[in-house]
Amino acid sequence: MNYSERIKKIQKKLRRKKIDAILITQPHNRRYLSGYSASDHDIGESSGALLIPARRKPILLTDFRFQILAQQETKGMEILLYPRGILPLLKKLLPDLDITSLAFESHYTLHSVAKTLKRMCRKLSISLHPTSDIVEKMRQVKDKKEIEIIRRSVLLNEKVFKKIHKTIYPGHTEIDIALALETTMRRRGAEGPSFETIVATGARSALPHAVAGSVKIIKNKALMIDMGLILDGYCSDMTRTFVVGSASKKYLKIHRLVRKAQLAAIKKIRAGVSAASVDKTARDIIVNGGYGKHFGHALGHGVGLAVHESPRLAMRNRKILKAGMVVTVEPGIYLPDWGGVRLENMVVVRENDCEVLNRDTTWLDI
Amino acid sequence: MNYSERIKKIQKKLRRKKIDAILITQPHNRRYLSGYSASDHDIGESSGALLIPARRKPILLTDFRFQILAQQETKGMEILLYPRGILPLLKKLLPDLDITSLAFESHYTLHSVAKTLKRMCRKLSISLHPTSDIVEKMRQVKDKKEIEIIRRSVLLNEKVFKKIHKTIYPGHTEIDIALALETTMRRRGAEGPSFETIVATGARSALPHAVAGSVKIIKNKALMIDMGLILDGYCSDMTRTFVVGSASKKYLKIHRLVRKAQLAAIKKIRAGVSAASVDKTARDIIVNGGYGKHFGHALGHGVGLAVHESPRLAMRNRKILKAGMVVTVEPGIYLPDWGGVRLENMVVVRENDCEVLNRDTTWLDI
Repeated sequence: MNYSERIKKIQKKLRRKKIDAILITQPHNRRYLSGYSASDHDIGESSGALLIPARRKPILLTDFRFQILAQQETKGMEILLYPRGILPLLKKLLPDLDITSLAFESHYTLHSVAKTLKRMCRKLSISLHPTSDIVEKMRQVKDKKEIEIIRRSVLLNEKVFKKIHKTIYPGHTEIDIALALETTMRRRGAEGPSFETIVATGARSALPHAVAGSVKIIKNKALMIDMGLILDGYCSDMTRTFVVGSASKKYLKIHRLVRKAQLAAIKKIRAGVSAASVDKTARDIIVNGGYGKHFGHALGHGVGLAVHESPRLAMRNRKILKAGMVVTVEPGIYLPDWGGVRLENMVVVRENDCEVLNRDTTWLDI
Repeated sequence: MNYSERIKKIQKKLRRKKIDAILITQPHNRRYLSGYSASDHDIGESSGALLIPARRKPILLTDFRFQILAQQETKGMEILLYPRGILPLLKKLLPDLDITSLAFESHYTLHSVAKTLKRMCRKLSISLHPTSDIVEKMRQVKDKKEIEIIRRSVLLNEKVFKKIHKTIYPGHTEIDIALALETTMRRRGAEGPSFETIVATGARSALPHAVAGSVKIIKNKALMIDMGLILDGYCSDMTRTFVVGSASKKYLKIHRLVRKAQLAAIKKIRAGVSAASVDKTARDIIVNGGYGKHFGHALGHGVGLAVHESPRLAMRNRKILKAGMVVTVEPGIYLPDWGGVRLENMVVVRENDCEVLNRDTTWLDI
């Protein structure tokens, strides 16, 4: 599905709900519908908004800093520049386009901005409709082209991992490794890491959110690397845990239990099963192994333009998986003061099974 | 001023306005008031909120991933973990603390979240008060300790620039240089760059927002580097434009005009003058030099925990500068298809003048 088909789908929805236009402010949604790749420095410093009228071509509103990029990246849409922010431009534009009802993204509009927007629309006799997740829902199921890009993103991420993995020795610091990974990503064409690279040695690997520090890699202890990159807009996300030196019996036991849980979940994934049931499949194995209370997070999450998106593979998520969804499968066991093991791969849901996108097998089946 | 004094100032404000508590969600504000340094992966993926009651000690609400960090970094505040998000925890906590009126940060709360918060507070008979920029206003004027950290941030940024500047040659790509800068920053103790490093060669330097690409440095043409880092939470921001090879007469003329505008603005800055008048001082020089319409942005902006904060040195900003404010002074001239020159230093406003924080003089007075 290309950009214009996506726009048409939104326009059809608008006409069905009898709304004249929608304002898209969420950066991934903006990119999904237009190809315009700029990110927002911050939600308060937007690099543009996409106004999609129900019955005419979309308009990308941005400022002079992004004009050339917007022209290069978009097709079939008008580009309008605002010298003083989006709202003053909309004030003129909405009446010009005869828009009398406007939807906006409630989940990516600040309360303060919505307040001003409301006041403005009241004066212009425009009805305002908060929406949430309209585009996010479309983004959940990936088309062939998207899956192909995600596959390349995963494979590049693995290449980078393997290259740096070979060079790791105990004198290295976590931050040395993280910088080597991130620099290699970008040299090989990634837009950047999809999140701050996690490199955690020894007991630090028990903190599920440790960022790399100036700590030296400890011999014979767990080393966890959780990394991802953005390639042509699409994210990858992978975790490997291994030992530099020789692994203890306890390490091996926990690692094998996590891997067993991961493989069982992967076997379970197919169109038609619920997200919760996949989480349960992995969780049951860890609970039965005696480590249930040390697996404190959800099994996985969707990945696409955003590194965390729907569907979450979580205990309470009754959502049914569909073919074309891309999710991580990442069980983990974390023991305070000892360390943690998490193993994460990405899969594409298919009608009767799933495809594991990862090829790397470093320290998986040990 | 330390954290507890800042908290007391907020509490005094609350009592004056007869509001029982305020919920701080903006990450820089959260850090300013507590020392807790986690950033939000995204506004939709918060790493915590600070609840400041008017008459008792503050409470940091976060989740298990950040528990240890929060304990290490904060003092004199309670830490409460939410297993299922901030709102369910508040629902229990607010009545327990007898809070009947609650302020929140309208400029860092999503419309969708505010809606749920409103509904919840209505049920609990709690009145809800949107606020904006209360903490941002406190953050504008820096104390001595903050200025000292910013000074170190600026000096480290310059060291990194000078180190890499020596190594630049025409075969280099923009991205090579950007990566070398960012890696060096982090190896030398920076938390990371304060924004995506800009390296733009030749005509690309005319795009005020060019990010580094895989383009080779062009000999005898403008090369613009705009870079900053975060050190102990505080940002630096500096731009240098120079020529690898020999500069044309036109380049020299434009560069000297930009520098003249910068020096005049710096001379103008002191407590008591308006932001607009400083912008005008620089702008007049560029206008009189015949390049007025090629200086399309504001002269500068405040810098602190955020790389862009108040006050903006902009044409229409009538705000009066105060001693202790830290701002950039960054005039620029951009000629499409030729290139641009921007020169940026940071200064601290003092009672009778300003202190230029930068020591680096690379390609300034040529």
